[in-house]
Amino acid sequence: VAVSEFELIRRIAGIVGTARQGVTVGIGDDAAVLPPDLVWTCDLLVEDVHFRRRTTSYADLGWKALAVNVSDVAAMGADPLGALVGLVVGDGVTAEDVEELYRGLDACATAYGCPVVGGDVSRGPELSLAVTALGRTASPVLRSGARPGDVLAVTGPLGGSGAGWHHLDGRIALPEELAAHVDRRHRRPQPRLAEARVLAGRVHAMLDVSDGIASDALRLAEASRVTTVVDLDALPLDRGVAEAAAGLGVAPGVLAATGGEDYELLVALDPADVADAGVPLHVVGRVEEGPVAVRFTGAGSADALGGWDHLGA
Amino acid sequence: VAVSEFELIRRIAGIVGTARQGVTVGIGDDAAVLPPDLVWTCDLLVEDVHFRRRTTSYADLGWKALAVNVSDVAAMGADPLGALVGLVVGDGVTAEDVEELYRGLDACATAYGCPVVGGDVSRGPELSLAVTALGRTASPVLRSGARPGDVLAVTGPLGGSGAGWHHLDGRIALPEELAAHVDRRHRRPQPRLAEARVLAGRVHAMLDVSDGIASDALRLAEASRVTTVVDLDALPLDRGVAEAAAGLGVAPGVLAATGGEDYELLVALDPADVADAGVPLHVVGRVEEGPVAVRFTGAGSADALGGWDHLGA
Repeated sequence: VAVSEFELIRRIAGIVGTARQGVTVGIGDDAAVLPPDLVWTCDLLVEDVHFRRRTTSYADLGWKALAVNVSDVAAMGADPLGALVGLVVGDGVTAEDVEELYRGLDACATAYGCPVVGGDVSRGPELSLAVTALGRTASPVLRSGARPGDVLAVTGPLGGSGAGWHHLDGRIALPEELAAHVDRRHRRPQPRLAEARVLAGRVHAMLDVSDGIASDALRLAEASRVTTVVDLDALPLDRGVAEAAAGLGVAPGVLAATGGEDYELLVALDPADVADAGVPLHVVGRVEEGPVAVRFTGAGSADALGGWDHLGA
Repeated sequence: VAVSEFELIRRIAGIVGTARQGVTVGIGDDAAVLPPDLVWTCDLLVEDVHFRRRTTSYADLGWKALAVNVSDVAAMGADPLGALVGLVVGDGVTAEDVEELYRGLDACATAYGCPVVGGDVSRGPELSLAVTALGRTASPVLRSGARPGDVLAVTGPLGGSGAGWHHLDGRIALPEELAAHVDRRHRRPQPRLAEARVLAGRVHAMLDVSDGIASDALRLAEASRVTTVVDLDALPLDRGVAEAAAGLGVAPGVLAATGGEDYELLVALDPADVADAGVPLHVVGRVEEGPVAVRFTGAGSADALGGWDHLGA
C-alpha cells in the first residue's frame, strides 16, 4: 500500500469505529478493553518484515511471538489469561520446525503464565504468526492519561534489541560477549509483566516500547493530546549500544530511541512518585502542554527520528 | 510440511497441552473456553489456500473472515463480544482495497453484533487475515457430548458453498439464478447465531460445518469417542447442488458432504427432542457405540470422503 501504517490504521478506525456499544477501548491503545475487565491484543510476525529465518531460530520466533503480546497485556496493567496462535506454515518449514516453534511459544507461556489455548494453522508462501493474547484487569492503564507536568520514565535500558538486530544482520561487529548480549535481547524479549503490575496503580499512562521510544513517545502524545519531550542523552543505554552506535556512525541515544523491540515500559507519572514507584525507573523526559508532538533534546536530536513502519518497504 | 493438518495440531497440542491451569477447554473444539465464561477462536484466511483474489471481492473477503469466526463462537453456544483483525497486506493491495475489506468486515460485525475492536497490520507477500473472536456463555456446548442413541442433525442445506466454489473456479456451468445463489453462499456465509442460541440448551454436542460434514462428523466422533453415521441420501441439498454435482460427475450427497464452508450447525441430540428443538432440524445420521470413526451410508458412500486439509497442496 502507498500509505503509512498510522494512516491505514486511521482509515480502518474510521470504518469500524473506535467506541462501539459494549466496547470500553477500541483501536488505538496497546490492547482493546472489553467489559467487564478484559484486555485483548494481537500482533503479527511476518517473515522478512519482522524477522528473517536465517537469523532467527524457530524456538526464538515462538518465544518472541508470544512475548510481544504479553508485553501489550502487561502495558495495560493486566494479567494474561491465555493466547491463540494463528500459524501460516511457509514453504520449506517442516513439522519438526513447527514443533520447535511451539516449544519456544510454550517456554514463554510458562514463564509468563499465558497458556496457548488454541489457534489455527494453514500453509502459505511465507512463515507468519498472528498471536493474540487476552488479559484481565479491573483498571486498565491507557496511553491517554499523561498530563502536563508528568515526567516520562522507562523501566530499563534501551537499544539492546536494535543493536542485536544490526549485529545479526551483519552491519556491525561487536566483541563476543556484547554480541551475545544484544543478540539475546533481540531474540528473547522479556516483557515487564511484574513491573507493570507494580506500576499500574501509580502511573498516569503506560505503554510498551515496541517500535522505539521516538515512535512510542509520539503515540503517547497523540493519545494524551500533549507534547512529549525525550532527552536522548538521558536514555539508559543497554550494554553494547554505545559500541553498536559507534559502528553505525550514529549517536548512542539515536540508536536507543529508534532501534525498537526493547519491550521496556514507558510511563508518565507525577515527578514526586518516581522515587517510590515500587520498581527502578529511569527518567527520560517530560510531558508538556502544547501541540501533539514529540520533541527531542540531546545528542542526535537534530536528526529526523522515526520508529518502525511495518507497511514500509 | 509433510504431515496432515490434524497430525500437526495433535503434535502442537502435545507441546502446549490441552488443559492448563485456568483453562477450561484448550485445543480441540470450535473455540477455547476460559473461566468464567469466555469462548475464544481464531481462523486464518490465506490467499490461494482459502480464497483467490480473482474470484473474491475485498468486501466479501472481509465479511467471510469475520463470519467464520462468529460461526465458531455460535457453535459453542456463545454470544460474540468482539473481534481482532490481523491483516497482512499482500503485494499490489491498495489502501482503498483495505478499506473495502474493512467495510465487509464491518457489515458482518454489525449484522452479528461482533465489533472489530483492534488488530494489527503488516505488509507481506500475499494477502492473509487472522481474525480472532471472543464470545461469552455460561454453558458452552462442546463437541464431546454426543452419546450413542443420539441423532445427528443440521440446521440447513449443505453443498451450496462447495458448488459456488467449483462454479467460481470455472469447473462447472450453472443456470444464472442458481449460479448467483451458490456464489453468494460461498462468498457471504451466514453464521447460524440465532439458531445456536436456541439449540444451546437442548443438544448434547454442537459444531459448525466448516470443512464439510464428512470431516466435521469425524471430529465429533473423535471428541465424543463414538462412531458417527452419516446418511448421504439424507443430507438436505442446497439449491444448485444437484446440478453442480451432475456437472462434476459425483453424487449430490458427496458434494454436500465434502464441499465445506456451509457454516450450518451440526448437532447431536436425543431423537425425542428433534421436533421441539426450537429451530427446524434435518436429521442426517446417528451416533453409535463403536470405534472412533465416521461411517457413510447412501449414494456415494463407497467413495473415500474427506474434508479440507489446509496444509495440503
